[in-house]
Amino acid sequence: MTNYKFEIRYDGTRYYGWEHQPKLDTVQGKLEAVLEKLDGGPVEVIGAGRTDAGVHAKGMVANAKLRTDPDPDTLRDYMNRYLPEDICVTDARAASELFHARYKAVGKLYTYTFWIGPLKPVFDRKFVTVLDKEPDLPAMREAAAYLIGTHDYTSFCGNPRYKRSCVRTVDSIEIVRRKSYLYLNFHGSGFLQNMVRIMTGTLLQAGNGEIEPAYVKEILEGRNRYLAGPMAPAQGLCLMKVDY
Amino acid sequence: MTNYKFEIRYDGTRYYGWEHQPKLDTVQGKLEAVLEKLDGGPVEVIGAGRTDAGVHAKGMVANAKLRTDPDPDTLRDYMNRYLPEDICVTDARAASELFHARYKAVGKLYTYTFWIGPLKPVFDRKFVTVLDKEPDLPAMREAAAYLIGTHDYTSFCGNPRYKRSCVRTVDSIEIVRRKSYLYLNFHGSGFLQNMVRIMTGTLLQAGNGEIEPAYVKEILEGRNRYLAGPMAPAQGLCLMKVDY
Repeated sequence: MTNYKFEIRYDGTRYYGWEHQPKLDTVQGKLEAVLEKLDGGPVEVIGAGRTDAGVHAKGMVANAKLRTDPDPDTLRDYMNRYLPEDICVTDARAASELFHARYKAVGKLYTYTFWIGPLKPVFDRKFVTVLDKEPDLPAMREAAAYLIGTHDYTSFCGNPRYKRSCVRTVDSIEIVRRKSYLYLNFHGSGFLQNMVRIMTGTLLQAGNGEIEPAYVKEILEGRNRYLAGPMAPAQGLCLMKVDY
Repeated sequence: MTNYKFEIRYDGTRYYGWEHQPKLDTVQGKLEAVLEKLDGGPVEVIGAGRTDAGVHAKGMVANAKLRTDPDPDTLRDYMNRYLPEDICVTDARAASELFHARYKAVGKLYTYTFWIGPLKPVFDRKFVTVLDKEPDLPAMREAAAYLIGTHDYTSFCGNPRYKRSCVRTVDSIEIVRRKSYLYLNFHGSGFLQNMVRIMTGTLLQAGNGEIEPAYVKEILEGRNRYLAGPMAPAQGLCLMKVDY
Protein backbone atom coordinates (compact mmCIF):
# COMPACT_ATOMS: atom_id res chain seq x y z
CA MET A 1 0.00 0.00 0.00
CA THR A 2 1.24 3.50 -0.81
CA ASN A 3 0.07 6.40 1.31
CA TYR A 4 -0.69 9.63 -0.57
CA LYS A 5 -1.12 13.11 0.82
CA PHE A 6 -3.49 15.43 -1.05
CA GLU A 7 -4.22 19.14 -0.96
CA ILE A 8 -7.74 19.88 -2.07
CA ARG A 9 -9.88 22.92 -2.77
CA TYR A 10 -13.61 22.82 -3.16
CA ASP A 11 -16.67 24.97 -3.53
CA GLY A 12 -18.85 23.40 -0.82
CA THR A 13 -22.09 25.00 -2.03
CA ARG A 14 -23.75 21.87 -3.33
CA TYR A 15 -22.25 19.34 -0.90
CA TYR A 16 -23.60 17.87 2.30
CA GLY A 17 -20.24 18.57 3.86
CA TRP A 18 -16.96 16.71 3.75
CA GLU A 19 -17.95 13.48 5.44
CA HIS A 20 -19.18 10.50 3.49
CA GLN A 21 -22.95 9.98 3.79
CA PRO A 22 -24.92 7.31 1.95
CA LYS A 23 -26.84 8.63 -1.08
CA LEU A 24 -25.77 12.25 -0.52
CA ASP A 25 -23.14 14.24 -2.38
CA THR A 26 -20.16 14.81 -0.10
CA VAL A 27 -16.61 15.80 -0.88
CA GLN A 28 -15.12 12.70 0.71
CA GLY A 29 -17.63 10.59 -1.20
CA LYS A 30 -16.62 12.13 -4.54
CA LEU A 31 -12.92 11.65 -3.84
CA GLU A 32 -13.39 8.04 -2.73
CA ALA A 33 -15.48 7.19 -5.78
CA VAL A 34 -12.75 8.43 -8.14
CA LEU A 35 -9.95 6.67 -6.26
CA GLU A 36 -11.88 3.41 -5.94
CA LYS A 37 -12.37 3.31 -9.69
CA LEU A 38 -8.63 3.79 -10.19
CA ASP A 39 -7.55 1.44 -7.42
CA GLY A 40 -10.06 -1.34 -8.01
CA GLY A 41 -11.37 -1.63 -4.45
CA PRO A 42 -12.51 0.29 -1.38
CA VAL A 43 -10.45 3.38 -0.54
CA GLU A 44 -10.79 5.54 2.55
CA VAL A 45 -9.93 9.20 2.13
CA ILE A 46 -9.07 10.70 5.53
CA GLY A 47 -9.56 14.47 5.75
CA ALA A 48 -7.85 16.81 8.19
CA GLY A 49 -11.27 17.97 9.30
CA ARG A 50 -14.91 17.43 8.55
CA THR A 51 -16.26 20.66 7.06
CA ASP A 52 -20.00 21.31 7.41
CA ALA A 53 -22.46 21.31 4.52
CA GLY A 54 -21.87 24.42 2.43
CA VAL A 55 -18.43 25.21 3.86
CA HIS A 56 -15.60 25.67 1.36
CA ALA A 57 -11.91 24.78 1.39
CA LYS A 58 -8.87 26.23 -0.28
CA GLY A 59 -6.41 24.11 1.65
CA MET A 60 -8.00 20.89 2.86
CA VAL A 61 -5.47 18.12 3.39
CA ALA A 62 -6.32 14.44 3.12
CA ASN A 63 -4.58 11.11 2.80
CA ALA A 64 -5.45 7.74 1.32
CA LYS A 65 -3.68 4.41 1.01
CA LEU A 66 -3.76 2.82 -2.43
CA ARG A 67 -2.91 -0.72 -3.51
CA THR A 68 -1.23 0.66 -6.61
CA ASP A 69 1.50 3.32 -6.65
CA PRO A 70 0.78 5.80 -9.41
CA ASP A 71 3.09 8.74 -10.01
CA PRO A 72 1.73 11.57 -7.80
CA ASP A 73 1.34 14.16 -10.59
CA THR A 74 -0.36 11.59 -12.81
CA LEU A 75 -2.63 10.69 -9.91
CA ARG A 76 -3.50 14.36 -9.34
CA ASP A 77 -4.34 14.88 -13.02
CA TYR A 78 -6.38 11.67 -13.15
CA MET A 79 -8.40 12.75 -10.13
CA ASN A 80 -9.00 16.23 -11.53
CA ARG A 81 -10.20 14.77 -14.81
CA TYR A 82 -12.87 12.67 -13.10
CA LEU A 83 -13.78 14.88 -10.14
CA PRO A 84 -16.64 17.38 -10.61
CA GLU A 85 -15.68 20.93 -11.53
CA ASP A 86 -16.19 22.18 -7.97
CA ILE A 87 -13.49 19.94 -6.45
CA CYS A 88 -9.82 20.17 -7.39
CA VAL A 89 -6.78 18.30 -6.09
CA THR A 90 -4.09 20.99 -6.09
CA ASP A 91 -1.29 18.70 -4.96
CA ALA A 92 -0.68 14.98 -4.56
CA ARG A 93 2.47 13.40 -3.20
CA ALA A 94 3.65 10.13 -1.72
CA ALA A 95 3.73 10.33 2.10
CA SER A 96 5.15 8.28 4.91
CA GLU A 97 3.08 5.27 5.82
CA LEU A 98 2.49 6.92 9.19
CA PHE A 99 1.04 10.15 7.79
CA HIS A 100 -2.57 10.59 8.89
CA ALA A 101 -4.27 13.81 7.76
CA ARG A 102 -6.39 14.14 10.90
CA TYR A 103 -4.20 12.81 13.69
CA LYS A 104 -1.03 14.51 12.49
CA ALA A 105 -2.60 17.95 12.01
CA VAL A 106 -1.25 20.43 14.57
CA GLY A 107 -3.03 23.59 13.43
CA LYS A 108 -5.74 24.93 11.16
CA LEU A 109 -6.57 28.27 9.65
CA TYR A 110 -10.18 29.10 8.84
CA THR A 111 -11.37 32.34 7.28
CA TYR A 112 -14.89 33.62 7.66
CA THR A 113 -15.78 36.25 5.04
CA PHE A 114 -18.50 38.85 5.39
CA TRP A 115 -19.56 41.24 2.65
CA ILE A 116 -20.65 44.62 3.96
CA GLY A 117 -23.55 46.32 2.17
CA PRO A 118 -25.27 48.29 0.76
CA LEU A 119 -24.16 46.76 -2.57
CA LYS A 120 -24.50 43.07 -3.30
CA PRO A 121 -21.70 40.55 -3.86
CA VAL A 122 -22.67 39.58 -7.40
CA PHE A 123 -19.62 37.51 -8.30
CA ASP A 124 -18.73 35.86 -5.01
CA ARG A 125 -22.15 35.64 -3.44
CA LYS A 126 -21.73 31.90 -2.76
CA PHE A 127 -18.60 32.54 -0.67
CA VAL A 128 -19.60 35.39 1.64
CA THR A 129 -22.29 36.26 4.16
CA VAL A 130 -23.84 39.69 3.66
CA LEU A 131 -23.99 42.20 6.51
CA ASP A 132 -26.36 45.13 6.16
CA LYS A 133 -24.35 47.45 8.33
CA GLU A 134 -20.82 48.00 9.48
CA PRO A 135 -20.19 46.21 12.78
CA ASP A 136 -18.17 47.78 15.59
CA LEU A 137 -14.73 46.31 14.89
CA PRO A 138 -13.05 47.41 18.14
CA ALA A 139 -15.87 45.68 20.05
CA MET A 140 -15.40 42.54 17.94
CA ARG A 141 -11.65 42.58 18.56
CA GLU A 142 -12.18 43.06 22.29
CA ALA A 143 -14.62 40.14 22.34
CA ALA A 144 -12.24 38.00 20.24
CA ALA A 145 -9.42 38.51 22.74
CA TYR A 146 -11.38 36.48 25.31
CA LEU A 147 -11.50 33.54 22.93
CA ILE A 148 -7.72 33.36 22.50
CA GLY A 149 -5.78 30.84 24.53
CA THR A 150 -6.39 27.35 25.80
CA HIS A 151 -9.95 26.98 27.05
CA ASP A 152 -12.82 24.58 27.39
CA TYR A 153 -14.98 25.60 24.41
CA THR A 154 -18.09 23.60 25.37
CA SER A 155 -20.21 26.75 24.84
CA PHE A 156 -18.99 26.89 21.23
CA CYS A 157 -19.52 23.24 20.38
CA GLY A 158 -22.43 22.46 18.06
CA ASN A 159 -22.61 18.81 19.03
CA PRO A 160 -24.58 18.43 22.28
CA ARG A 161 -23.65 14.76 22.52
CA TYR A 162 -19.90 15.34 22.25
CA LYS A 163 -18.38 13.33 25.10
CA ARG A 164 -14.66 14.04 24.84
CA SER A 165 -12.69 17.04 26.02
CA CYS A 166 -13.74 20.40 24.59
CA VAL A 167 -10.39 21.94 25.46
CA ARG A 168 -8.74 23.50 22.44
CA THR A 169 -6.18 26.22 21.80
CA VAL A 170 -7.03 29.23 19.68
CA ASP A 171 -3.78 31.03 18.81
CA SER A 172 -5.16 34.05 17.05
CA ILE A 173 -8.29 35.69 15.69
CA GLU A 174 -7.48 38.39 13.16
CA ILE A 175 -10.26 40.77 12.13
CA VAL A 176 -9.43 42.46 8.84
CA ARG A 177 -11.55 45.03 7.00
CA ARG A 178 -10.65 45.45 3.30
CA LYS A 179 -12.79 47.01 0.57
CA SER A 180 -16.28 45.50 0.81
CA TYR A 181 -15.05 42.57 2.89
CA LEU A 182 -14.64 41.75 6.55
CA TYR A 183 -12.40 38.74 7.17
CA LEU A 184 -12.19 36.80 10.42
CA ASN A 185 -9.10 34.58 10.42
CA PHE A 186 -9.13 31.89 13.10
CA HIS A 187 -5.95 29.95 13.76
CA GLY A 188 -5.88 27.19 16.34
CA SER A 189 -4.80 23.70 17.25
CA GLY A 190 -8.15 22.35 16.18
CA PHE A 191 -11.81 23.28 16.33
CA LEU A 192 -14.91 21.53 17.62
CA GLN A 193 -17.94 20.93 15.45
CA ASN A 194 -19.41 24.27 14.27
CA MET A 195 -16.98 26.06 16.61
CA VAL A 196 -15.74 28.64 14.09
CA ARG A 197 -19.27 29.45 13.00
CA ILE A 198 -20.49 29.83 16.60
CA MET A 199 -17.50 32.01 17.49
CA THR A 200 -18.23 34.11 14.40
CA GLY A 201 -21.90 34.47 15.32
CA THR A 202 -20.94 35.49 18.85
CA LEU A 203 -18.34 38.03 17.71
CA LEU A 204 -20.93 39.51 15.40
CA GLN A 205 -23.28 39.93 18.36
CA ALA A 206 -20.53 41.96 20.02
CA GLY A 207 -20.09 43.95 16.81
CA ASN A 208 -23.81 44.69 16.64
CA GLY A 209 -24.02 45.74 20.28
CA GLU A 210 -26.22 42.79 21.25
CA ILE A 211 -23.72 41.68 23.88
CA GLU A 212 -20.89 43.39 25.71
CA PRO A 213 -17.46 42.13 24.62
CA ALA A 214 -16.68 41.07 28.21
CA TYR A 215 -19.70 38.78 28.17
CA VAL A 216 -17.67 36.39 26.01
CA LYS A 217 -15.66 35.51 29.10
CA GLU A 218 -18.88 34.50 30.83
CA ILE A 219 -19.97 32.47 27.82
CA LEU A 220 -16.70 30.52 27.92
CA GLU A 221 -16.86 29.97 31.67
CA GLY A 222 -20.52 28.92 31.57
CA ARG A 223 -19.74 25.89 29.36
CA ASN A 224 -23.20 25.97 27.89
CA ARG A 225 -23.99 26.21 24.19
CA TYR A 226 -27.09 28.33 24.90
CA LEU A 227 -24.98 31.19 26.21
CA ALA A 228 -23.14 31.70 22.92
CA GLY A 229 -24.48 33.36 19.78
CA PRO A 230 -26.04 31.70 16.74
CA MET A 231 -24.01 29.81 14.14
CA ALA A 232 -22.99 32.09 11.28
CA PRO A 233 -24.12 30.69 7.90
CA ALA A 234 -21.92 28.01 6.33
CA GLN A 235 -21.29 29.78 3.02
CA GLY A 236 -18.96 32.43 4.48
CA LEU A 237 -16.56 29.85 5.92
CA CYS A 238 -13.47 28.43 4.23
CA LEU A 239 -10.74 26.08 5.50
CA MET A 240 -7.59 27.83 4.31
CA LYS A 241 -4.68 25.77 5.59
CA VAL A 242 -3.75 22.79 7.73
CA ASP A 243 -0.41 22.67 9.54
CA TYR A 244 1.64 19.51 10.19
CA MET B 1 -39.54 62.71 -16.77
CA THR B 2 -36.21 62.34 -14.99
CA ASN B 3 -33.35 60.59 -16.75
CA TYR B 4 -31.20 58.34 -14.57
CA LYS B 5 -27.80 56.89 -15.34
CA PHE B 6 -26.98 53.53 -13.80
CA GLU B 7 -23.84 51.48 -13.38
CA ILE B 8 -24.59 47.79 -13.16
CA ARG B 9 -22.73 44.58 -12.52
CA TYR B 10 -24.12 41.16 -13.21
CA ASP B 11 -23.24 37.51 -13.30
CA GLY B 12 -24.59 36.65 -16.76
CA THR B 13 -24.52 32.88 -16.22
CA ARG B 14 -28.25 32.31 -16.05
CA TYR B 15 -29.40 35.09 -18.39
CA TYR B 16 -30.26 35.01 -22.07
CA GLY B 17 -28.12 38.10 -22.49
CA TRP B 18 -28.80 41.75 -21.83
CA GLU B 19 -31.57 42.39 -24.28
CA HIS B 20 -35.22 42.03 -23.37
CA GLN B 21 -36.82 38.87 -24.81
CA PRO B 22 -40.37 37.76 -24.11
CA LYS B 23 -40.63 34.96 -21.54
CA LEU B 24 -36.87 34.66 -21.09
CA ASP B 25 -34.72 35.93 -18.23
CA THR B 26 -32.62 38.83 -19.44
CA VAL B 27 -30.79 41.54 -17.52
CA GLN B 28 -32.69 44.35 -19.22
CA GLY B 29 -35.93 42.53 -18.51
CA LYS B 30 -35.13 42.21 -14.79
CA LEU B 31 -34.20 45.89 -14.51
CA GLU B 32 -37.31 47.04 -16.37
CA ALA B 33 -39.59 44.88 -14.24
CA VAL B 34 -38.25 46.43 -11.03
CA LEU B 35 -38.43 50.00 -12.35
CA GLU B 36 -41.91 49.53 -13.82
CA LYS B 37 -43.18 48.41 -10.45
CA LEU B 38 -41.72 51.53 -8.85
CA ASP B 39 -42.72 53.92 -11.61
CA GLY B 40 -46.21 52.60 -12.27
CA GLY B 41 -45.91 52.18 -16.04
CA PRO B 42 -43.67 51.01 -18.88
CA VAL B 43 -39.98 51.88 -18.51
CA GLU B 44 -37.29 51.33 -21.10
CA VAL B 45 -33.80 50.64 -19.77
CA ILE B 46 -31.21 51.49 -22.43
CA GLY B 47 -27.90 49.70 -22.07
CA ALA B 48 -24.55 50.82 -23.44
CA GLY B 49 -24.28 47.49 -25.22
CA ARG B 50 -26.15 44.23 -25.60
CA THR B 51 -24.09 41.52 -23.98
CA ASP B 52 -24.58 37.95 -25.21
CA ALA B 53 -26.17 35.17 -23.19
CA GLY B 54 -23.74 34.13 -20.46
CA VAL B 55 -21.53 37.23 -20.70
CA HIS B 56 -20.91 39.15 -17.47
CA ALA B 57 -20.52 42.82 -16.65
CA LYS B 58 -18.70 44.72 -13.94
CA GLY B 59 -19.30 48.13 -15.49
CA MET B 60 -22.39 48.12 -17.69
CA VAL B 61 -23.95 51.57 -18.01
CA ALA B 62 -27.63 52.13 -18.70
CA ASN B 63 -30.16 54.91 -18.54
CA ALA B 64 -33.91 55.10 -18.03
CA LYS B 65 -36.45 57.90 -17.88
CA LEU B 66 -38.86 57.78 -14.97
CA ARG B 67 -42.12 59.67 -14.38
CA THR B 68 -41.17 60.08 -10.74
CA ASP B 69 -37.90 61.54 -9.45
CA PRO B 70 -36.66 59.43 -6.57
CA ASP B 71 -33.43 60.31 -4.82
CA PRO B 72 -30.69 58.42 -6.72
CA ASP B 73 -29.24 56.56 -3.73
CA THR B 74 -32.73 55.59 -2.59
CA LEU B 75 -33.47 54.40 -6.12
CA ARG B 76 -30.26 52.33 -6.21
CA ASP B 77 -31.08 50.70 -2.87
CA TYR B 78 -34.68 50.04 -3.93
CA MET B 79 -33.50 48.36 -7.13
CA ASN B 80 -30.94 46.24 -5.31
CA ARG B 81 -33.55 45.11 -2.83
CA TYR B 82 -35.83 43.78 -5.59
CA LEU B 83 -33.29 42.67 -8.19
CA PRO B 84 -32.08 39.06 -8.08
CA GLU B 85 -28.81 38.40 -6.28
CA ASP B 86 -26.85 38.15 -9.54
CA ILE B 87 -27.59 41.73 -10.62
CA CYS B 88 -26.48 44.80 -8.67
CA VAL B 89 -26.83 48.50 -9.40
CA THR B 90 -23.54 49.91 -8.16
CA ASP B 91 -24.39 53.53 -8.87
CA ALA B 92 -27.46 55.59 -9.79
CA ARG B 93 -27.49 59.30 -10.51
CA ALA B 94 -29.68 61.89 -12.19
CA ALA B 95 -28.42 62.59 -15.71
CA SER B 96 -29.04 65.19 -18.38
CA GLU B 97 -32.19 64.62 -20.37
CA LEU B 98 -29.95 64.10 -23.41
CA PHE B 99 -27.87 61.30 -21.87
CA HIS B 100 -28.31 58.07 -23.83
CA ALA B 101 -26.26 55.10 -22.61
CA ARG B 102 -25.76 53.64 -26.09
CA TYR B 103 -25.47 56.67 -28.38
CA LYS B 104 -23.27 58.67 -26.05
CA ALA B 105 -20.79 55.86 -25.35
CA VAL B 106 -17.40 56.62 -26.92
CA GLY B 107 -15.42 53.64 -25.72
CA LYS B 108 -15.70 50.24 -24.08
CA LEU B 109 -13.37 47.93 -22.25
CA TYR B 110 -14.00 44.18 -22.34
CA THR B 111 -11.87 41.59 -20.58
CA TYR B 112 -11.73 37.99 -21.67
CA THR B 113 -10.36 35.70 -18.96
CA PHE B 114 -8.79 32.32 -19.53
CA TRP B 115 -7.71 29.93 -16.80
CA ILE B 116 -4.62 27.92 -17.67
CA GLY B 117 -4.52 24.30 -16.47
CA PRO B 118 -3.68 21.73 -15.27
CA LEU B 119 -5.61 22.67 -12.11
CA LYS B 120 -9.25 23.63 -12.23
CA PRO B 121 -10.80 27.02 -11.40
CA VAL B 122 -12.97 25.82 -8.52
CA PHE B 123 -14.14 29.20 -7.23
CA ASP B 124 -14.45 31.27 -10.40
CA ARG B 125 -15.29 28.54 -12.85
CA LYS B 126 -18.35 30.46 -14.09
CA PHE B 127 -16.19 33.44 -15.08
CA VAL B 128 -13.30 31.90 -16.98
CA THR B 129 -12.67 29.62 -19.92
CA VAL B 130 -10.19 26.83 -19.23
CA LEU B 131 -7.16 26.29 -21.47
CA ASP B 132 -5.37 22.96 -21.23
CA LYS B 133 -2.02 24.33 -22.29
CA GLU B 134 -0.08 27.55 -22.28
CA PRO B 135 -0.57 29.42 -25.55
CA ASP B 136 2.28 31.20 -27.34
CA LEU B 137 1.85 34.74 -26.00
CA PRO B 138 4.29 36.46 -28.39
CA ALA B 139 2.35 34.94 -31.30
CA MET B 140 -0.94 36.14 -29.78
CA ARG B 141 0.47 39.64 -29.31
CA GLU B 142 1.77 39.69 -32.88
CA ALA B 143 -1.64 38.59 -34.15
CA ALA B 144 -3.40 41.15 -31.95
CA ALA B 145 -1.35 43.99 -33.42
CA TYR B 146 -3.10 43.46 -36.78
CA LEU B 147 -6.47 44.02 -35.13
CA ILE B 148 -5.53 47.42 -33.70
CA GLY B 149 -6.64 50.52 -35.57
CA THR B 150 -9.66 51.51 -37.60
CA HIS B 151 -10.78 48.65 -39.83
CA ASP B 152 -13.77 47.03 -41.40
CA TYR B 153 -14.38 44.12 -39.00
CA THR B 154 -16.89 42.23 -41.15
CA SER B 155 -14.87 39.03 -40.64
CA PHE B 156 -15.35 39.42 -36.88
CA CYS B 157 -19.08 40.13 -36.90
CA GLY B 158 -21.34 37.35 -35.69
CA ASN B 159 -24.47 38.73 -37.34
CA PRO B 160 -24.55 37.70 -41.03
CA ARG B 161 -27.52 39.98 -41.70
CA TYR B 162 -25.86 43.11 -40.29
CA LYS B 163 -26.39 45.80 -42.94
CA ARG B 164 -24.61 48.85 -41.52
CA SER B 165 -20.95 49.73 -41.52
CA CYS B 166 -18.65 47.25 -39.83
CA VAL B 167 -15.94 49.88 -39.44
CA ARG B 168 -14.83 50.23 -35.84
CA THR B 169 -11.73 51.38 -33.98
CA VAL B 170 -9.86 49.05 -31.64
CA ASP B 171 -7.44 51.15 -29.58
CA SER B 172 -5.62 48.43 -27.72
CA ILE B 173 -5.51 44.74 -26.99
CA GLU B 174 -3.50 43.95 -23.89
CA ILE B 175 -2.53 40.35 -23.21
CA VAL B 176 -1.64 39.84 -19.57
CA ARG B 177 -0.52 36.59 -17.93
CA ARG B 178 -0.90 36.54 -14.13
CA LYS B 179 -0.89 33.51 -11.84
CA SER B 180 -3.29 30.95 -13.34
CA TYR B 181 -4.99 33.57 -15.52
CA LEU B 182 -4.58 34.94 -19.00
CA TYR B 183 -6.42 38.23 -19.54
CA LEU B 184 -7.21 39.76 -22.92
CA ASN B 185 -8.24 43.40 -22.47
CA PHE B 186 -9.94 44.90 -25.52
CA HIS B 187 -10.49 48.64 -25.64
CA GLY B 188 -12.26 50.23 -28.57
CA SER B 189 -14.84 52.69 -29.79
CA GLY B 190 -17.43 49.97 -29.96
CA PHE B 191 -17.70 46.34 -30.93
CA LEU B 192 -19.92 44.42 -33.36
CA GLN B 193 -22.05 41.49 -32.28
CA ASN B 194 -19.79 38.67 -30.95
CA MET B 195 -16.74 40.65 -32.12
CA VAL B 196 -14.72 40.34 -28.92
CA ARG B 197 -15.41 36.62 -28.72
CA ILE B 198 -14.44 36.05 -32.36
CA MET B 199 -11.27 38.12 -31.96
CA THR B 200 -10.47 36.08 -28.85
CA GLY B 201 -11.06 32.78 -30.66
CA THR B 202 -8.83 33.95 -33.53
CA LEU B 203 -6.03 35.12 -31.23
CA LEU B 204 -6.15 31.78 -29.49
CA GLN B 205 -5.68 30.05 -32.86
CA ALA B 206 -2.51 32.10 -33.28
CA GLY B 207 -1.47 31.14 -29.74
CA ASN B 208 -2.03 27.44 -30.48
CA GLY B 209 -0.12 27.55 -33.77
CA GLU B 210 -3.24 26.86 -35.84
CA ILE B 211 -2.70 30.06 -37.84
CA GLU B 212 0.26 32.32 -38.46
CA PRO B 213 -0.09 35.70 -36.71
CA ALA B 214 0.18 37.49 -40.07
CA TYR B 215 -2.87 35.60 -41.33
CA VAL B 216 -4.99 37.93 -39.19
CA LYS B 217 -4.28 40.67 -41.73
CA GLU B 218 -5.76 38.46 -44.44
CA ILE B 219 -8.78 37.66 -42.29
CA LEU B 220 -9.48 41.38 -41.84
CA GLU B 221 -9.00 42.15 -45.52
CA GLY B 222 -11.13 39.22 -46.65
CA ARG B 223 -14.24 40.64 -44.93
CA ASN B 224 -15.68 37.17 -44.49
CA ARG B 225 -16.75 35.67 -41.19
CA TYR B 226 -15.62 32.19 -42.28
CA LEU B 227 -11.99 33.29 -42.40
CA ALA B 228 -11.85 34.16 -38.71
CA GLY B 229 -11.64 31.72 -35.79
CA PRO B 230 -14.47 30.34 -33.69
CA MET B 231 -16.27 32.39 -31.04
CA ALA B 232 -14.68 31.93 -27.63
CA PRO B 233 -17.25 30.78 -25.02
CA ALA B 234 -19.40 33.49 -23.44
CA GLN B 235 -18.53 32.75 -19.83
CA GLY B 236 -14.98 34.15 -20.06
CA LEU B 237 -16.17 37.57 -21.22
CA CYS B 238 -16.93 40.59 -19.05
CA LEU B 239 -17.83 44.18 -19.93
CA MET B 240 -15.56 46.15 -17.60
CA LYS B 241 -16.18 49.81 -18.38
CA VAL B 242 -17.98 52.19 -20.72
CA ASP B 243 -16.49 55.61 -21.53
CA TYR B 244 -18.53 58.78 -22.19
